[in-house]
Amino acid sequence: MQEFLFLNKDFLLKTETARILYHEYAAKKPIIDYHCHVSPKEIYEDKKFDNISQVWLGGDHYKWRLMRANGVEEAFVTGSAGDREKFQAFAETLPRAVGSPVYQWTHLELRRYFNCDLIINGENAETIWNTCNAVLSGGLTVRNMIRQANVTTICTTDDPADTLEWHEKLRGEADWGTKVYPAFRPDKAVNIEKSDFPDYIQQLASVAKISINSLPDLFSALTKRIDFFHELGCRAADHGLDYIPFREKSAGKIEEIFKKAIRKEPLSVKESDAYKTAVLQFCAGEYAKRGWVMQLHYGAIRNANTLHFEKLGADTGNDCVSTRDGSAALVKLLDSIEKNGGLPKTVLYSLNPNDNTMLTTIAGCFANKIQHGSAWWFNDTKIGMETQLKNLASTGLLGSFIGMLTDSRSFLSYTRHEYFRRVLCNLIGDWVQNGEFPADINSLGKIAGDISYDNAMNYFGF
Amino acid sequence: MQEFLFLNKDFLLKTETARILYHEYAAKKPIIDYHCHVSPKEIYEDKKFDNISQVWLGGDHYKWRLMRANGVEEAFVTGSAGDREKFQAFAETLPRAVGSPVYQWTHLELRRYFNCDLIINGENAETIWNTCNAVLSGGLTVRNMIRQANVTTICTTDDPADTLEWHEKLRGEADWGTKVYPAFRPDKAVNIEKSDFPDYIQQLASVAKISINSLPDLFSALTKRIDFFHELGCRAADHGLDYIPFREKSAGKIEEIFKKAIRKEPLSVKESDAYKTAVLQFCAGEYAKRGWVMQLHYGAIRNANTLHFEKLGADTGNDCVSTRDGSAALVKLLDSIEKNGGLPKTVLYSLNPNDNTMLTTIAGCFANKIQHGSAWWFNDTKIGMETQLKNLASTGLLGSFIGMLTDSRSFLSYTRHEYFRRVLCNLIGDWVQNGEFPADINSLGKIAGDISYDNAMNYFGF
Amino acid sequence: MQEFLFLNKDFLLKTETARILYHEYAAKKPIIDYHCHVSPKEIYEDKKFDNISQVWLGGDHYKWRLMRANGVEEAFVTGSAGDREKFQAFAETLPRAVGSPVYQWTHLELRRYFNCDLIINGENAETIWNTCNAVLSGGLTVRNMIRQANVTTICTTDDPADTLEWHEKLRGEADWGTKVYPAFRPDKAVNIEKSDFPDYIQQLASVAKISINSLPDLFSALTKRIDFFHELGCRAADHGLDYIPFREKSAGKIEEIFKKAIRKEPLSVKESDAYKTAVLQFCAGEYAKRGWVMQLHYGAIRNANTLHFEKLGADTGNDCVSTRDGSAALVKLLDSIEKNGGLPKTVLYSLNPNDNTMLTTIAGCFANKIQHGSAWWFNDTKIGMETQLKNLASTGLLGSFIGMLTDSRSFLSYTRHEYFRRVLCNLIGDWVQNGEFPADINSLGKIAGDISYDNAMNYFGF
Repeated sequence: MQEFLFLNKDFLLKTETARILYHEYAAKKPIIDYHCHVSPKEIYEDKKFDNISQVWLGGDHYKWRLMRANGVEEAFVTGSAGDREKFQAFAETLPRAVGSPVYQWTHLELRRYFNCDLIINGENAETIWNTCNAVLSGGLTVRNMIRQANVTTICTTDDPADTLEWHEKLRGEADWGTKVYPAFRPDKAVNIEKSDFPDYIQQLASVAKISINSLPDLFSALTKRIDFFHELGCRAADHGLDYIPFREKSAGKIEEIFKKAIRKEPLSVKESDAYKTAVLQFCAGEYAKRGWVMQLHYGAIRNANTLHFEKLGADTGNDCVSTRDGSAALVKLLDSIEKNGGLPKTVLYSLNPNDNTMLTTIAGCFANKIQHGSAWWFNDTKIGMETQLKNLASTGLLGSFIGMLTDSRSFLSYTRHEYFRRVLCNLIGDWVQNGEFPADINSLGKIAGDISYDNAMNYFGF
Repeated sequence: MQEFLFLNKDFLLKTETARILYHEYAAKKPIIDYHCHVSPKEIYEDKKFDNISQVWLGGDHYKWRLMRANGVEEAFVTGSAGDREKFQAFAETLPRAVGSPVYQWTHLELRRYFNCDLIINGENAETIWNTCNAVLSGGLTVRNMIRQANVTTICTTDDPADTLEWHEKLRGEADWGTKVYPAFRPDKAVNIEKSDFPDYIQQLASVAKISINSLPDLFSALTKRIDFFHELGCRAADHGLDYIPFREKSAGKIEEIFKKAIRKEPLSVKESDAYKTAVLQFCAGEYAKRGWVMQLHYGAIRNANTLHFEKLGADTGNDCVSTRDGSAALVKLLDSIEKNGGLPKTVLYSLNPNDNTMLTTIAGCFANKIQHGSAWWFNDTKIGMETQLKNLASTGLLGSFIGMLTDSRSFLSYTRHEYFRRVLCNLIGDWVQNGEFPADINSLGKIAGDISYDNAMNYFGF
Repeated sequence: MQEFLFLNKDFLLKTETARILYHEYAAKKPIIDYHCHVSPKEIYEDKKFDNISQVWLGGDHYKWRLMRANGVEEAFVTGSAGDREKFQAFAETLPRAVGSPVYQWTHLELRRYFNCDLIINGENAETIWNTCNAVLSGGLTVRNMIRQANVTTICTTDDPADTLEWHEKLRGEADWGTKVYPAFRPDKAVNIEKSDFPDYIQQLASVAKISINSLPDLFSALTKRIDFFHELGCRAADHGLDYIPFREKSAGKIEEIFKKAIRKEPLSVKESDAYKTAVLQFCAGEYAKRGWVMQLHYGAIRNANTLHFEKLGADTGNDCVSTRDGSAALVKLLDSIEKNGGLPKTVLYSLNPNDNTMLTTIAGCFANKIQHGSAWWFNDTKIGMETQLKNLASTGLLGSFIGMLTDSRSFLSYTRHEYFRRVLCNLIGDWVQNGEFPADINSLGKIAGDISYDNAMNYFGF
């Protein structure tokens, strides 16, 4: 049996072409982390972790879901059990997760950051726990994790009402090798149907130092915040949408809807869709003016299990894929923005893997403005990446792809770029092996490097 | 050329790991047949067949569709032609079915049950006919088919109004190695829009010995039948739905809708959806109380060709895949049941292969209660199984999967488990070969065995 | 590195079986081009081209989209730049199109028609330009392209109001080896919501020499044109639909809707769907009477980018995939036609690759009347073809498949048949290699040949 194959030097790289492309080109590129969920405060403070559970299990709903599916009690997932006990429960779950990206992510992290090539299971848990904790206490802080991964640029995800105090502090610092910028995510200003919307608007008003009594007021506040984000280096915005809304109404009607929401009166779905359409159109215009990139993430049903949500809140592993058709609305939304002054650079991500060809072909109708984003969330797997890449290559222009995003909730997630680059190089290697593309290594090496790093740097304009 | 490869000892098993996992672990497990369409009467009576056409062509719409697609006249499919002529028409069709699971199923059955490794075609038809019929008359009865396949447990599919007389007789018998239980399939009590609904309710009332004049009466009747099924060992229910309905209405409204249907007044789609939602919620609650498993099968358009239906009736190869989006309704239905006292163990099956990721990710929102069921009906193919397994492994926990269901309409269908187990072991072998999982044969062998048998036995609680 | 693999003799043919099937069977078959967008006038006049840009870039929106995605200015795509400059821009784009079918199509065309095996890139552009132009001026006319590709039969795509003058002239000619027939595409008579509908009806009236004041008049006009097309050898009709409409209304209601449209009054979507349903049903009945094949192509969102459309018009690379669910409407439409006198032979194509299983399973409900058509437009790629073939093989009868359609906008596109046949033979070879089908070369060679040519000739009845 081939024990040595697991995560070895050439894992996932089945052809000679793939191996050359990965080792000589892709692996040498630094990382741009243009979309993630890590904390700028933890970067500024260069956080230290007491143990591996804090890093791995502290906020990672992928791992929580696996543990729950294995019948682990919630106490040992997000509850009151101790960190060592939680780690044990996770280590005992993992051997059953054959075929899961979490299996490969965690083992890669163990090897790359902790120099430990043990297999994670119940038996090895104690040794791994001690090994990792020693490395953590020996100086594997947040910034060292980032440095070790060769990350040049990080865009965090920030609310318009965020003061960006940690970003300002980071900016005031001497250069430590990595640029950290905010990214603008105004979901709370878009989600008018949520009960906390009126409160949020007051919060935004206060941060923006503007009184918000009308839609134009809201737009002024958003513009002020966009300008402030821009000053701190922000070049990317991000919208998380359950589905793509599209319903155009007059400014007067939108104003009425906004005021109803502020007065906490209930809205119909049509009303909230109309409001959302207008805010998206407005924001897109502001992004376009400043050369920003607009990312649209859609296709989740969030908080599917109400009892779970009431106990544990949002972003706790309680979301799933929606297969609702969004093609017509997406086309109309993008077209309306293009007509009203021009689309910004736009990256489209759907959580529904069936949307791949649709997204790539929509992108192709808007010249080189739109990118079909990399396989996202539940699709951030070997099969998901391969499907996205094959679709993009078949119906778009692969050489222009801006590549992988980290989407991380932990500072160890940068090994996902290694995983993506291996999948990419292997796919190209297969095409060469198959006679579908010439073995022109220079040209292919350039493409592998561009997709790994340079295309994204150019697209975002850092 | 590699004639010897066809269905040889290692077919579908491309790696050494796959071969070990299959031969040493998966193949040694018995079979639990937790969902099928075979007749308990035929099991009790230990039916003998006169010829292979009776076994293969008597009720198998997969084969009928192939024959029709080959231009075979209906007389030779389901009509008045003799069994030998029908067999000839089938044998002449099969060589054109390259890539069809029916090709592989029938040849596997021929090898495993009849010890005949001829290729099925027009030329060999006479020899195969004689060989099979000799084996059938030599003692290959229904029970011997079941025994030979090493089936420990069978759950048939039974209407609430069924007297279960054959199950009672089977229960009274000495143990012959296989347990046969009913499974509860109340489709006729759910499908309120069907013209025979009022008559069915009377039939149910009579069997349940209860007069049904209201929804509470219906629920009492269903409860009585559930209890009766439970006594006879039933631990599984099953709902066949064209699509997932979800529309919550007050008990009073549902009562009105029910009474309209009983009076044979026409219902709107919204009304019948509301009724169905209420009955599903009620049944789910009863299943949960008893520790039963609820299976939901949805996503077919049935009886697509009206002329065909009028001539040949239902379940005659006249159904197709619906691509209607069911994600939102499914989440709401499951969530409503979870809130109202708790979901039973639930297995989700969609006929639309695009639903794979959606189903696995929904399952993940309900801890370990929900299973994403194996590739069903039109997806019960190599590509269908591989897609379901890869999706499940990527976004769920493969090690907990309850595996293959037979869904058979013939007692020879148990070779589908062999086929599934080979696909499963081959997929795991590929992961090892690819460096994605360590070649830890003990751990992988446990998983292969669990998915082949033990997980299902534990999940259903037999 | 394996430079020699690129498009070599055995490219895409990974197994010995695949190589035998392709070289000994599939490659030897002529081509039937039953659906394309080439000009009968250019065939009649045996058009000569001045340069390769005219052939490749004159009307090919696949190439335009790649160039735009590469940031090429529109002047160099469809604009005022010279042919040599456009060629340069294209040649510089292509190396980045790794994984694109355009990469392989153009290189195959270069090899098969121009005997040039250079790699297309900026550096080689000048040599390729000169080489191709020399071959073009040396006698590679339209008819020679067709002859060289061994095409026996071409069906162009023609409007009912077309005079078919070029078809009549072609018919009057001595036989030059290839039959050219019109195909009937009445989209303009179906698309009642378009602003030019009333004008079109007048144009149709004039060509049909009938005054059209009512729906029966329109149907008479269409019937006259169908008869005229039939005389000129037409045996195929073709409908391009954004989505499948289905809404049955009384003849009187349809009449009203038609008259509203003629009076240029606006129609609701429901009204235009009802009209379209009626016209499709009528046309299908006429096709059935004459033994024609009806092709239904649906699933595009056309002219997605309004600014682009206003500048460049339709069919300029501004369309994308719709993921709207059409399963229920499609079943109802086909069933309604079958009930009203019988479906014609029908080929179903969806632009949404997720529809594959749905289409094959619908086809199976109508015996051997319906074909699931080959991977179309954006899906005319290796992955698209493989997916369609695997789905068809798994849930239909592959041996009866009518195979590849050219769908070409250039006379060089016939190499797509070579590509398709290689993919087909390779897939069958994999099944044999995998032990899923016996290595019965005679039987498989027959199937490969049938799918390459004979099945389509028989199905269309040429």
